[in-house]
Amino acid sequence: MSTVNRRIVLKLRPTGIPLPEHFKRDDEPLAVPGAGQFLVRNLFLSIDPAQRGWVNSSGNYSNPVAIGAVMRSLCVGVVEASQHPDVAPGEHLYGWFGWQDYCVATPQEILRRVDPAQAPLTAAAGVLGITGLTAYLALTRIGAPQRDETVIVSTAAGAVGSIVGQIARRLGCFVVGITGSEEKVSRCKREFGYHEALNYKSGFDTAAIRERCPRGADVFFDNTSGAIADAVIPVMNIRGRVIQCGTAAEPVWDPPPSGPRRDREILVKRLRHEGFIIFDHVKEFPAVAATLAQWIREGSLHYRDDVEPGLDRAPPALAAIYQGENQGKKIIQL
Amino acid sequence: MSTVNRRIVLKLRPTGIPLPEHFKRDDEPLAVPGAGQFLVRNLFLSIDPAQRGWVNSSGNYSNPVAIGAVMRSLCVGVVEASQHPDVAPGEHLYGWFGWQDYCVATPQEILRRVDPAQAPLTAAAGVLGITGLTAYLALTRIGAPQRDETVIVSTAAGAVGSIVGQIARRLGCFVVGITGSEEKVSRCKREFGYHEALNYKSGFDTAAIRERCPRGADVFFDNTSGAIADAVIPVMNIRGRVIQCGTAAEPVWDPPPSGPRRDREILVKRLRHEGFIIFDHVKEFPAVAATLAQWIREGSLHYRDDVEPGLDRAPPALAAIYQGENQGKKIIQL
Repeated sequence: MSTVNRRIVLKLRPTGIPLPEHFKRDDEPLAVPGAGQFLVRNLFLSIDPAQRGWVNSSGNYSNPVAIGAVMRSLCVGVVEASQHPDVAPGEHLYGWFGWQDYCVATPQEILRRVDPAQAPLTAAAGVLGITGLTAYLALTRIGAPQRDETVIVSTAAGAVGSIVGQIARRLGCFVVGITGSEEKVSRCKREFGYHEALNYKSGFDTAAIRERCPRGADVFFDNTSGAIADAVIPVMNIRGRVIQCGTAAEPVWDPPPSGPRRDREILVKRLRHEGFIIFDHVKEFPAVAATLAQWIREGSLHYRDDVEPGLDRAPPALAAIYQGENQGKKIIQL
Repeated sequence: MSTVNRRIVLKLRPTGIPLPEHFKRDDEPLAVPGAGQFLVRNLFLSIDPAQRGWVNSSGNYSNPVAIGAVMRSLCVGVVEASQHPDVAPGEHLYGWFGWQDYCVATPQEILRRVDPAQAPLTAAAGVLGITGLTAYLALTRIGAPQRDETVIVSTAAGAVGSIVGQIARRLGCFVVGITGSEEKVSRCKREFGYHEALNYKSGFDTAAIRERCPRGADVFFDNTSGAIADAVIPVMNIRGRVIQCGTAAEPVWDPPPSGPRRDREILVKRLRHEGFIIFDHVKEFPAVAATLAQWIREGSLHYRDDVEPGLDRAPPALAAIYQGENQGKKIIQL
C-alpha cells in the first residue's frame, strides 16, 4: 500500500464550466482511519455534469467545494481497512470519496454498497450509479410516462439520456431524442431505443420536432435548458411534464441568462415543470440498481462506458463532457 | 318579455388586452328555445381576466371567440322558458351565457346550478364562481400549503388573490401579498388575511420580498408572470410550488416576452411550476362553492363585488381590470 495519497483539489472557483486550470495536484501522506472510520481505495471516479454545480458558488443545491479541498466526486472503491463495525475490508462501495487515491470515510459517505457479481464494477460508477438511477427515477417519478405517450429527451445519447430513451421505450412510449451530431442521431436509433432523433446543430427547430412527434409530447426529459428546451416546449401536450434534470446548454447562471418566458404555455397547457436532484432519492438506490442490473444481465439495457486511466485525467475529462466529447459515461480508472 | 336580444359581439381580434374598440353592439330578435334547449335571462355578467385569452388567437386553452360572435362570458341568469326536462323555469344558473340579455342554452353551458338562498346572487358570479373556485382549487390542489408554510400571492387584492390570501390564512400559513398601491397594501392586511403585503410599484425587489418572508416561500400563487414573478422566484424554498394561474403583467404573448430563465432555480430547488385552468375542475364546483358559501354566511370570508349596471359597460369594464382599476370582483348587472 502506498504511503502517499494523490489528490486533486480545487485551486480557483470557476463561474461557469470547470476547466483544468481550476484544479491542482496536492498530495498528502496517507491517513489512517480512526474509530468509526474506514479507508477506501478508489478504483473508479465518476465524471458527472453535476460536478459543475458542486464547485460553482451559486445556483447550487449543496455547499460548494472549498478552495483547497479535494474535488467532490462519486467513486467506486474497495475498503482496505476499517474501524467501523458495519463496514468490512474487501467490500465495494459507491460513495463520496473524491478525486484522490484513498479516502478516510464514514458510513454517511456511502451511497450504495456494491455487489461485484451484479454487474461490472465500472457499471457501479455509471449506469448503476447516479447516471442510470437519475434516468430511471426522474423519468418515472416526475415524468410518469404512460404507454403510447411521447417522450422527448435532450442530450439523448449522453450517459443519462441514453438510459432514459431505453427505459421510456420499455414503458411503451414513443421516444424522440435530441443530440449533437449525425453519428449520435444514428446511435440513438440503433442502440438506445429512440424511434426518432434530431441533431440540434442542423435544421433544428420547433417545426422539425413537431414533425418527429405526430402526437405532440407528453414528457420532456430536459438535460439542457436554453434554446433546445425553447424549441421543445411549444410541442408539449396538455398536462405535459417537463423534468429539469440538467442545464448543460447554458454555461453561466449568475446572473441567469434570458430566454422566452414560458408562463403562458405552462398556464394554458397546465404543464408541470419540476426539478430533479438524485440525492433526494438515495433510499431507492438499491432497488432501482437491482432492476437496472438485471436488465444489463439480460442484455436488454445498453450502456457505454468511456473509461480513461489516470487520476490526472479527471480535470480535462470533466471539461470535455460539457463539450459533448465523451462516448458514453466518462469514468476515470485509478 | 322583450322581443329584442341585445348582444355585444367581437368586432376585431385584439393581440393583447381587449379594448372597447374590439367590440360592437349587434342586437337580434329574441330566439325561442327548441327541443332540449332553454332560455336564460342574464342577471349578472362576470368580468374576468381570462377573457383576454378567450379572444386572443394564440396562447389559449380554448377555441377563440369568432369575429361576429357574442363575447364569451360567464353569467348568472334565470331560466325563463325550458324545453329540457332537467331545467325548470325560475332556476338560477351559472354558465356560458355571453354578453347578451338572453341566451338559448343547453345543459352543457351550465357550470353550476345556483341556490339563491346560499348567498347573494352577485356572489354566484364572483366569489362562488370561477373567482373563488380558482382561488380554492388552485391553492389546495397545486400549492397544497401546509400549516406554517409561507404563501406569496400576486394580484393579492384582486378578485382571486383576495380569496387566496384568506384561504391560505385559514390553513395556518404565513401569507404575503403583492399588489399595486399603498391603499391595496393596507386592504390586504386589514381585510384579506395577509400578514404582510408589498406594493410592486415602490421599492419592490427580491430583497424586499425576502425581508417580509423570514422563512422563504413555499407556495407562490402567481397571477402576473413578468417582473413580479422574477422577483419572487429566488425567494422560493426547496420543493416550493409555483401555481401559474394568470399572466396579467405581460400584455402580449405572441411572440412570448423574454425574461430570466428559471430552469436552474427549478432544478436546484426541485421547484414544481404548474399551470391551472379552472375548467378542468367543474365536477368539484358544487362542493367547493358550498364550503365558500358557508364561510360567507359565517362572516369569515370577505369579498368585494364591484357591480356596474348596463350591458354596454362590459367592454370598458373588461379593459379596466387589466389596469387594476376595479375594487373587487367586477360584475355587470343587466
